[in-house]
Amino acid sequence: MRVRLGSIVEALGGELLGDAERAIEGIAPLDAATPAHLSFLSNPKYQQQLLASQAACVIVGPAAREAAQARGDCIVAADPYLYFARVTQWWKRQLGQDQGPAVHPSAVVDPGAVVHPHARIGPLCVVERGASIGAGTVLKARVNVGENCVIGERCILHPGVVIGADGFGFAPQQGEWVKIEQLGAVRIGNDVEIGANTCIDRGALADTIIEDGVKLDNLIQIAHNVRIGKHTAMAGCVGVAGSASIGAYCTVGGGAGIVGHLTIADHVHISSFSLVTRSILKPGHYTGVFPIDDNASWEKNAATLKQLHTLRERIKALEKKT
Amino acid sequence: MRVRLGSIVEALGGELLGDAERAIEGIAPLDAATPAHLSFLSNPKYQQQLLASQAACVIVGPAAREAAQARGDCIVAADPYLYFARVTQWWKRQLGQDQGPAVHPSAVVDPGAVVHPHARIGPLCVVERGASIGAGTVLKARVNVGENCVIGERCILHPGVVIGADGFGFAPQQGEWVKIEQLGAVRIGNDVEIGANTCIDRGALADTIIEDGVKLDNLIQIAHNVRIGKHTAMAGCVGVAGSASIGAYCTVGGGAGIVGHLTIADHVHISSFSLVTRSILKPGHYTGVFPIDDNASWEKNAATLKQLHTLRERIKALEKKT
Amino acid sequence: MRVRLGSIVEALGGELLGDAERAIEGIAPLDAATPAHLSFLSNPKYQQQLLASQAACVIVGPAAREAAQARGDCIVAADPYLYFARVTQWWKRQLGQDQGPAVHPSAVVDPGAVVHPHARIGPLCVVERGASIGAGTVLKARVNVGENCVIGERCILHPGVVIGADGFGFAPQQGEWVKIEQLGAVRIGNDVEIGANTCIDRGALADTIIEDGVKLDNLIQIAHNVRIGKHTAMAGCVGVAGSASIGAYCTVGGGAGIVGHLTIADHVHISSFSLVTRSILKPGHYTGVFPIDDNASWEKNAATLKQLHTLRERIKALEKKT
Repeated sequence: MRVRLGSIVEALGGELLGDAERAIEGIAPLDAATPAHLSFLSNPKYQQQLLASQAACVIVGPAAREAAQARGDCIVAADPYLYFARVTQWWKRQLGQDQGPAVHPSAVVDPGAVVHPHARIGPLCVVERGASIGAGTVLKARVNVGENCVIGERCILHPGVVIGADGFGFAPQQGEWVKIEQLGAVRIGNDVEIGANTCIDRGALADTIIEDGVKLDNLIQIAHNVRIGKHTAMAGCVGVAGSASIGAYCTVGGGAGIVGHLTIADHVHISSFSLVTRSILKPGHYTGVFPIDDNASWEKNAATLKQLHTLRERIKALEKKT
Repeated sequence: MRVRLGSIVEALGGELLGDAERAIEGIAPLDAATPAHLSFLSNPKYQQQLLASQAACVIVGPAAREAAQARGDCIVAADPYLYFARVTQWWKRQLGQDQGPAVHPSAVVDPGAVVHPHARIGPLCVVERGASIGAGTVLKARVNVGENCVIGERCILHPGVVIGADGFGFAPQQGEWVKIEQLGAVRIGNDVEIGANTCIDRGALADTIIEDGVKLDNLIQIAHNVRIGKHTAMAGCVGVAGSASIGAYCTVGGGAGIVGHLTIADHVHISSFSLVTRSILKPGHYTGVFPIDDNASWEKNAATLKQLHTLRERIKALEKKT
Repeated sequence: MRVRLGSIVEALGGELLGDAERAIEGIAPLDAATPAHLSFLSNPKYQQQLLASQAACVIVGPAAREAAQARGDCIVAADPYLYFARVTQWWKRQLGQDQGPAVHPSAVVDPGAVVHPHARIGPLCVVERGASIGAGTVLKARVNVGENCVIGERCILHPGVVIGADGFGFAPQQGEWVKIEQLGAVRIGNDVEIGANTCIDRGALADTIIEDGVKLDNLIQIAHNVRIGKHTAMAGCVGVAGSASIGAYCTVGGGAGIVGHLTIADHVHISSFSLVTRSILKPGHYTGVFPIDDNASWEKNAATLKQLHTLRERIKALEKKT
């Protein structure tokens, strides 16, 4: 595909300083761009890369206008990273993908499910009885939407996603486990994206709730009766245990965990690999990760860690003596 | 659905103190229940919620009999949480789901597999040659059961489960990896439940064994030649490495890991996110998690942690001096 | 199946000390082997097990030749574990599996995909437009290969694998997320094996790259634009964040994580459950795991850990005083 720089600015706005007729064939980071690429500078600390870049044209913010123009063609936009995102969307539309039928013939859609005529159900998906799929929502290949689960509008569910499997609920009886049937469902808002092989379990009694604009990466586990507030994003391999209530505008780093039955406020940011074991009621950034080290150093420190409480007592004793 | 309180007690026992003709339309926790709901009090510390609950009727233990009766209708049962579990099962039966054909026409079942006539194979499942599926077992949609793997009776396998993929076995040869064909299978007992997208690998030579009554949540990885003893339960995202032998009646918290070739006794409980790096031969509760903190505090403590061994030496030196 | 010892040595080399006509019916570890089994001694520390083993024949290295011969039949090979791997491959070939059609009729293969005539596409796989599958590659059941993704020769992709789902890329806009379309693909070399339900995302602009001979276990997440060098192996449940560049000949233990946009040199070994938070430019073995302990001890040490920085200050103060 070859497109004129002018056609991008006509579609997306921004100020083009340079030749509207110049053609680009792709988008690339500054350091990989060739004279056939459009690139972007979103972080001022990469300004050196800007000057060295071979790109045909670079999207920049107002502050980099002069430096960019001195290098060559540029598009000035208020938020260059956001502009770049819009360009990727525009680019994909130009590719003009033939997306095939609205419901792929290999999908298994129960006659008692409601699929909006503007939704797309990919190959080998399963949509069970009573489920509902909103307008503009896309189920890629091999997605499961269980009984009575509701997916809003303009959502994207990637391959292998399982919505509405039973929550993990059992009552103990003399060391054995008696199943608690999971009578709730899953309700997902609008503009939610869910990554490959991620699972969201149905509620035990009430529903599991994913609010508008939530973004979940791959291989995430959301247990029954969790609530995730709007526009919260979670990176891959996160696990959220049952009945946790997570606020809006949070971010959760990859591999982090959230224990059940606790509350996380809005605007909380959890580092990768950290386990949230108590409610977090104040916005902020929280971490709990053992720092990596060369193995020999780690072994010494980890062994000492097991005596940490004792060390503290020894310090106390020393303090009394001196 | 509307059901008479009397019909529940007739089916499940327990003592109804109240109006057998009162109708309920659902089950809900104490704080969410309306006058159309049945609820339950399983933990005495929620007795305040009992008194405030709007529920039509509450399942309680003998100790809460009087408090509950003062509030309104109740069902007295020896173990109210277990009774609640039985109610969910009864409720689901009343919903009278039409479950469709025993083997969904979209499933791919090898003619050399043995599927009990009272098993159910959901849409888009794959059952390979020599596999065997016991009576009453349900494979939900998109489940894989590999060659020669055996699933017992009354098991539930949720969507995306993969039983019998190859174990991860390679012999090194000059830095490269030579595949060790995995010639064993997986044998799963009766009454086992396996969560969405969980994987259980086939053994290298002997079989991977999951004993009766084991409950596995979603996105769990069970490597080749692992053995899990009866009635052990594991929460989501757990990983168990090859040839680990885990006892009966254990629980493993979400995101925990178990290193290969070790032994865990019966009645061992592992906290979420903890890595078991050595055999545990004594029943008990074991933990290894870095405590979460606000990021600034964590950074200071984590930096110091790398000098922990040195700090210990400095304490020793101080002790000698004083 | 019964095979003559002689037929193994004829196929794979090695020196048989014993009866070429002796028949074996399987392969087993030393301690489980019966007189119908072939076994192997790869680690000299198990020499006691060698002497006690009931095996019909044991594969040993040159150093154990005499001990093994004193016990009974043996095959002497330069690298007995590698020889064992070759025997498992030979054994599987003897089982003479009927593998069915090259492309299973239930698979959904886009007419614009290129599948080599010597590749095998299992049941319920999805191969999208522009994807390419090399000679000798096997997609087991329910594998996804997304648009324009390239899989090399002799690869094995286990059930549930998702290649080429969208990477997790969004630009923030007033607290909401604007999708960055993922315009790259995934390129996978030759002789790569990918475990069940593992996901490898397509690149944002450039491609995600998996080099020759890489082995990935189950439930691994590889984010967009990651590069994994040749012959690197990762155990189950590992997560690698976007644009991480991992060297060749590395190993990554189960449940470990690698943060995005960093570089790991060749020959680096990461312990299970460790999070790599910075580039590692020197070969070696690296670890960061909180040591497991009985819960009561852990609680005391974890509580003290939150004061670790303060303890260090107290030690400093003591040192000044004495």
